[in-house]
Amino acid sequence: MASRSYDRGPGDLRPVNIEPGFVRTATGSCLYEQGETRVICTASASTSVPRWLEGTGRGWVTAEYAMLPASTGERKERDSKRGRPDGRSTEIQRLIGRSLRGVVDLEALPEISIYVDCDVLQADGGTRCASITGGWVALRLATRKLLEEGVIERDPLTGSVAAISCGFVDGEALCDLDYSEDSRAEVDANIVMTGDGGLVEFQATAERTVASRASLDTLLELAEPAIAKLRAAQLEACS
Amino acid sequence: MASRSYDRGPGDLRPVNIEPGFVRTATGSCLYEQGETRVICTASASTSVPRWLEGTGRGWVTAEYAMLPASTGERKERDSKRGRPDGRSTEIQRLIGRSLRGVVDLEALPEISIYVDCDVLQADGGTRCASITGGWVALRLATRKLLEEGVIERDPLTGSVAAISCGFVDGEALCDLDYSEDSRAEVDANIVMTGDGGLVEFQATAERTVASRASLDTLLELAEPAIAKLRAAQLEACS
Amino acid sequence: MASRSYDRGPGDLRPVNIEPGFVRTATGSCLYEQGETRVICTASASTSVPRWLEGTGRGWVTAEYAMLPASTGERKERDSKRGRPDGRSTEIQRLIGRSLRGVVDLEALPEISIYVDCDVLQADGGTRCASITGGWVALRLATRKLLEEGVIERDPLTGSVAAISCGFVDGEALCDLDYSEDSRAEVDANIVMTGDGGLVEFQATAERTVASRASLDTLLELAEPAIAKLRAAQLEACS
Amino acid sequence: MASRSYDRGPGDLRPVNIEPGFVRTATGSCLYEQGETRVICTASASTSVPRWLEGTGRGWVTAEYAMLPASTGERKERDSKRGRPDGRSTEIQRLIGRSLRGVVDLEALPEISIYVDCDVLQADGGTRCASITGGWVALRLATRKLLEEGVIERDPLTGSVAAISCGFVDGEALCDLDYSEDSRAEVDANIVMTGDGGLVEFQATAERTVASRASLDTLLELAEPAIAKLRAAQLEACS
Amino acid sequence: MASRSYDRGPGDLRPVNIEPGFVRTATGSCLYEQGETRVICTASASTSVPRWLEGTGRGWVTAEYAMLPASTGERKERDSKRGRPDGRSTEIQRLIGRSLRGVVDLEALPEISIYVDCDVLQADGGTRCASITGGWVALRLATRKLLEEGVIERDPLTGSVAAISCGFVDGEALCDLDYSEDSRAEVDANIVMTGDGGLVEFQATAERTVASRASLDTLLELAEPAIAKLRAAQLEACS
Amino acid sequence: MASRSYDRGPGDLRPVNIEPGFVRTATGSCLYEQGETRVICTASASTSVPRWLEGTGRGWVTAEYAMLPASTGERKERDSKRGRPDGRSTEIQRLIGRSLRGVVDLEALPEISIYVDCDVLQADGGTRCASITGGWVALRLATRKLLEEGVIERDPLTGSVAAISCGFVDGEALCDLDYSEDSRAEVDANIVMTGDGGLVEFQATAERTVASRASLDTLLELAEPAIAKLRAAQLEACS
Repeated sequence: MASRSYDRGPGDLRPVNIEPGFVRTATGSCLYEQGETRVICTASASTSVPRWLEGTGRGWVTAEYAMLPASTGERKERDSKRGRPDGRSTEIQRLIGRSLRGVVDLEALPEISIYVDCDVLQADGGTRCASITGGWVALRLATRKLLEEGVIERDPLTGSVAAISCGFVDGEALCDLDYSEDSRAEVDANIVMTGDGGLVEFQATAERTVASRASLDTLLELAEPAIAKLRAAQLEACS
Repeated sequence: MASRSYDRGPGDLRPVNIEPGFVRTATGSCLYEQGETRVICTASASTSVPRWLEGTGRGWVTAEYAMLPASTGERKERDSKRGRPDGRSTEIQRLIGRSLRGVVDLEALPEISIYVDCDVLQADGGTRCASITGGWVALRLATRKLLEEGVIERDPLTGSVAAISCGFVDGEALCDLDYSEDSRAEVDANIVMTGDGGLVEFQATAERTVASRASLDTLLELAEPAIAKLRAAQLEACS
Repeated sequence: MASRSYDRGPGDLRPVNIEPGFVRTATGSCLYEQGETRVICTASASTSVPRWLEGTGRGWVTAEYAMLPASTGERKERDSKRGRPDGRSTEIQRLIGRSLRGVVDLEALPEISIYVDCDVLQADGGTRCASITGGWVALRLATRKLLEEGVIERDPLTGSVAAISCGFVDGEALCDLDYSEDSRAEVDANIVMTGDGGLVEFQATAERTVASRASLDTLLELAEPAIAKLRAAQLEACS
Repeated sequence: MASRSYDRGPGDLRPVNIEPGFVRTATGSCLYEQGETRVICTASASTSVPRWLEGTGRGWVTAEYAMLPASTGERKERDSKRGRPDGRSTEIQRLIGRSLRGVVDLEALPEISIYVDCDVLQADGGTRCASITGGWVALRLATRKLLEEGVIERDPLTGSVAAISCGFVDGEALCDLDYSEDSRAEVDANIVMTGDGGLVEFQATAERTVASRASLDTLLELAEPAIAKLRAAQLEACS
Repeated sequence: MASRSYDRGPGDLRPVNIEPGFVRTATGSCLYEQGETRVICTASASTSVPRWLEGTGRGWVTAEYAMLPASTGERKERDSKRGRPDGRSTEIQRLIGRSLRGVVDLEALPEISIYVDCDVLQADGGTRCASITGGWVALRLATRKLLEEGVIERDPLTGSVAAISCGFVDGEALCDLDYSEDSRAEVDANIVMTGDGGLVEFQATAERTVASRASLDTLLELAEPAIAKLRAAQLEACS
Repeated sequence: MASRSYDRGPGDLRPVNIEPGFVRTATGSCLYEQGETRVICTASASTSVPRWLEGTGRGWVTAEYAMLPASTGERKERDSKRGRPDGRSTEIQRLIGRSLRGVVDLEALPEISIYVDCDVLQADGGTRCASITGGWVALRLATRKLLEEGVIERDPLTGSVAAISCGFVDGEALCDLDYSEDSRAEVDANIVMTGDGGLVEFQATAERTVASRASLDTLLELAEPAIAKLRAAQLEACS
């Protein structure tokens, strides 16, 4: 077994650091850091909704994900140069949006939209999970502010949500893969859970091999305590 | 429990019908039908590869997914009108591509690309799974033709792959959801498996609720015999 | 004179086969086959009209044309990849739309739009003509359904319309060119006629030569009986 | 019968004025005026060819057509605002290109491309025909210059080409329709002919009616003397 | 010191020629020529305003700038080919719009927009300045016409505006740089002034060197009499 | 005179804070803060150059500018949604690129490109100037690293460059305008200077008034000591 960054054991998280209020112009925000992966998460409220929700009294929560050009070693061209988000970003932002909406009561956001923007400052594996975990902090701070300002009357959040990547690398089940682990994983899973341990989304992909039902179970077991630790960090950041 | 289309029990598939060679200009093709969901699957071989593979001797398999404008009740605008595939199509075609590559030895496709195009003729739930199952048939027929023509020397397929959607609807675990079931499912999973029962990709999403680890297990159990039946239909279509 | 496909004489059509109702989610549809050219034609009704018709009480009929990627021997990139229909497709779909509107009383479609989508499954010459002939069948079936459902009160179709390509190949006037004939034709004409023999659109192009007025007359003479046969096939498909 | 602009009879042209060399930075150019329709035509030579012609020793002639925003009474949005030429412009520039290539020997342009740009300054009917007639003048001046400079060795032009619109308005056959005539024509034809009277392209459209073969003949008869007069104006401009 | 085109001294303008009413379909227009630089300027009035002005009672003046493909020696690809204006055009049209709005009372244009389109016919340096000077003429003629037609009640123009490029070439301060001078200038400034000598916009760029405050003063001094001469030409063209 | 933020006098800067190395995946980077305006500046080196520089042995420095969606009070749509940078961003990134290139010897970057990306985290006026001042820090750190790693042999920077906005607000000349000042300024100037006081770029715009030559002089005088202070902050950040 190769040694892991930060001298971690197989089930350990990288150090998590959350700086709430990082972007003062946003309704809610944080700088979310998990090891060398760092994501700017902001939540912006607006009083218009997508057309299909107009007149329904319900609101909307959606996410956008982008990597800053210098976030990986090699410069990544901006999406606006090619005229559209790339396929990977599209796939990721749909996952973030679904995960966050999993803990939102849209009835409590009367025709209010909240955009959660996740801009990756540094990418070292697990950016989509970091975006969900940090995005929830931004969303929590934003909805609290909307409550305080009387824009909304009751809390739209029904709970918290966080995400962690787990996978098999060289046959061993590991939690919180960094880039070097992720790029050689045989099975790679992204697990999204609520604070009380319910599964919101589970995506597992086998590369160069196939996975058994038992191996998925192993990854889910590994994820549970990690999600609990992430939840503690989220709550502390919002306290 | 509501009655299911085709008088099915909870674990039953809709009738599957595969018409191989449906598009005679393609290297390989089929019209894949599963109940009222119908997808045209073609596999087209070309002798160029994406830039990052040039000079490596390896080939590529990729997928594109689109819905014909009349495939749902209400006309869907073409992607070319808006200038790009929509987010859902992007997400789906990435899943199809990964799933098919899971059973391809790219070394056996010396700088040859195979495009698997999945164009949905009618959509009644499960179109991404149908695209994978039918896409494999097109890919199988195309690679067989390339072998017969001497374009490639050994079979690039290491096995078969098929996919099925399972989910919980009104608390009951069901296999092969049609649109009316899918739209009210509490948990919705897409399960991609090789012919010998290995998991390639597993995506589960909870809507308006959360899922337990046990419930995922139930869905995976439901999927296994369904995948075996799909594999039989695939092999018969390719015989 | 080279022998023609299907042992045809100069004025003969390729075998025509029309499968009405091919796409069950469309308001009207058919799979239109003329020799190895095959086009999926659907007509979808919607209750909105282009902005310039709002408030006029009149409706609209328009067409879109696309080739599926595998419809020719070599894979054709999707329009959505480049962000717009190519020039040839644009030119063709404008011709289809004008031709169909030639037999529609837009006053009888009170602020209803009908989109006729022509997606080429296999291309072996004459796809724009096949799209018009098959598109009319889809439009006929759709308007009949709208009448039956009471959405419209009177039949908006004032007649039928069909199209055929004729041309001079190696100095000989031929009807219904397939791809191998079309690509070496000296003069190539697309002739659109109503069921009672009136010209709706006539486009003739000379390649590597020029045409005389007499030669255009010859092509028009060749077209007339062909259009009559196409009309018979259309009516049978709609019966 | 309504009186026509410039007191014309049914077969008369509007006044034609051609100012050769209007754009001094172009290889060849003219300002082409036919009544109130005015088009800037330029021909620009470049020493690269489209990819499919590389290595063949042959050249290419292509055309682009655009309307300046103020060319009609109401301001027309630029194509670059919407990101692509509109369908009508696409259809027109393909016609211009085909018509000009009809009198070019591409073998005499060794891997040289000539772009003929037609920018409509004022539109009063017949802009596509004016673009062909004026475009040929620009092309003639450009190829003459290339010959004089020794860039090419023999004249690539095999003849001249011009175009005229004819149509039936209130039942009467008219030559050179202006906008007010064109917009109420029952049959509208664009006729492209070489200087020695051979047909290159013929496009006729019936609106709100159908046309007979005899009526097409009438329009072709009307076009012939008009094309002869346009040819005389072209030659004088190039003398 | 190199000799200058048209035998000019350092402070001299190239010959200025303005042909008012060049585009008869525009509300106001001119062909603006300054040496070999020639720009078609049109002003088109419309009765809609950008969304953020709706209901304010105020109007808008904006500009668009484009180079015709043949306007430089080498053919320039159209913006609509790439799907958007290039960066330089964007920068320039924003400058033109700001400069013209500097002499417009938007309150006197009740929810009326005026688009000033500047299409470069020939580019020999100073096209952005020529667009401003000529654009004002088109705007002057258009607003006068709107006044005459009673569309507006009072003159929205508070004065005139013109622009000139000045720069240091080989250490010498020159007025009205042509392309050969501009491309080797050490300091290049675009100076926009009202008819009564007030500065509206001043942009100076040093290339391969830096500029001193004194040198900017020198350029401004050079500009003043040039702007006065341009103003005289503008007024004469509008008389 | 209204009181200024941070109790500043007319010639005072807002507090400047520069955090070098803010993005550890970039070749050089900083978080640049000037009052409430905060910009992430990164410099990324790559070993390819734009096509027109290939084979010349020279390198390139270019800049891209974007505002993060939450950087202003109201959420700003991403450029990638509309498919291109907006006009203002285009104008700004061209200014940043020119300013930085003003102190770079491109011969000392043998076919190496450096992209300077400026992503605005919070916008409170002066973001283009902050991008230049902070962008130089990122560029300084990147080129130093390239020197240390032996990628380049001599320092391509010929000096430092910084920028400040100055303007007249309510008749008073102020240095370093924040958003509330900028939005009601009569004259607004962006002044780019090298560390030794040479002007690189000067852009002044009068709004709702005109400027005199004397007033431009006043602004330039105000800028000089400010630039000196910015230079000191830059050097300290790079020490």
